Amino acid sequence: MIYPDLLQKLINFYKKLPGVGDKSAERMALATIELKAEDIKEFSKVLVDSKEKLKPCQICGQLTENDICHICSDDNRDKNLICVIEDYKSVFSFEKVGNYHGVYHVLNGLISPMDSIGPEDINISSLVKRVEALKNPELILALKSTIEGETTTLYIKKIFEKKDVTISRLSYGIPIGAEIDYLDIITLDKALEDRKRISE
Amino acid sequence: MIYPDLLQKLINFYKKLPGVGDKSAERMALATIELKAEDIKEFSKVLVDSKEKLKPCQICGQLTENDICHICSDDNRDKNLICVIEDYKSVFSFEKVGNYHGVYHVLNGLISPMDSIGPEDINISSLVKRVEALKNPELILALKSTIEGETTTLYIKKIFEKKDVTISRLSYGIPIGAEIDYLDIITLDKALEDRKRISE
Repeated sequence: MIYPDLLQKLINFYKKLPGVGDKSAERMALATIELKAEDIKEFSKVLVDSKEKLKPCQICGQLTENDICHICSDDNRDKNLICVIEDYKSVFSFEKVGNYHGVYHVLNGLISPMDSIGPEDINISSLVKRVEALKNPELILALKSTIEGETTTLYIKKIFEKKDVTISRLSYGIPIGAEIDYLDIITLDKALEDRKRISE
Repeated sequence: MIYPDLLQKLINFYKKLPGVGDKSAERMALATIELKAEDIKEFSKVLVDSKEKLKPCQICGQLTENDICHICSDDNRDKNLICVIEDYKSVFSFEKVGNYHGVYHVLNGLISPMDSIGPEDINISSLVKRVEALKNPELILALKSTIEGETTTLYIKKIFEKKDVTISRLSYGIPIGAEIDYLDIITLDKALEDRKRISE
């Protein structure tokens, strides 16, 4: 036994987080017990609250503490411009760009026949419902350039192609194979600006 | 506002930890809310407990959940061999080596006239009391080789020099595996000074 039991438990928790190895976990645990007691109590509460209270927005599916997220309930956002994303994490990347004035739709997955994930397993029907209530909407399909991403893009394009919906995708400023969540904001900004209409 | 409020608070906490920047804090916060609710509740409890319950051992000063730490209460440890260290973190380094069978004494600081830290401000009187109760004890002074470390080492050596106490310090020298060509000259000088005769 190298560490006191409680310290070992702290270290074990930190090791569950991405990019944290033995040495970092020890440093983080030791730094933790040197924080102010009030900070630790506050963090302890935030931990439990964030797990319990952060839920998908009932409109777009991004994380929120309320029923409707702050983006969907913002009157300055263009509700006719919907950026379709694989998961809620992409919202933070786009919001950091700071240039996007539309709203989002979180699919919560991609169509993947290999993994038996069909269109009915991801949030496509709710997207169709949203779009039907709009006039001349534009969908920006911001999905990654894997087989699953392309399949999903094509599937969504097909649904809307005979309707009065502009469909675009992010431009190929995105490096092939890169995760949208970890892109630098300049590339992401360019990709937004250069988005391409998906033509027949 | 890029993140929901609770997520931002999680990120802010992680950013207080050493070596965690914006990007890592975001990744860690997102990974946190994807952990199981029971793991998070457990962690939340461990956080508060570790701050409240980890206290200095009444004998050696290292962190423990009890009055006396598991090392001081271990009958297999040599109580006559005391490794004197600046802070409790060094205990973990020595325990990882796994080869040390003595006990510890945490000074909780070093003598530093520049910072108005005198011998009475660190745990020296408790060390004197411990040593007086022992027969032929050995003290290993494992303090760093700064002015403060050297001053403290000399001060402790002086206290015990006329008593029946063996005083040693860690050897200085070349770290295992290091290239001699790239060593700093002070280390090399020490390694020359502390050279060991190669015995038959």
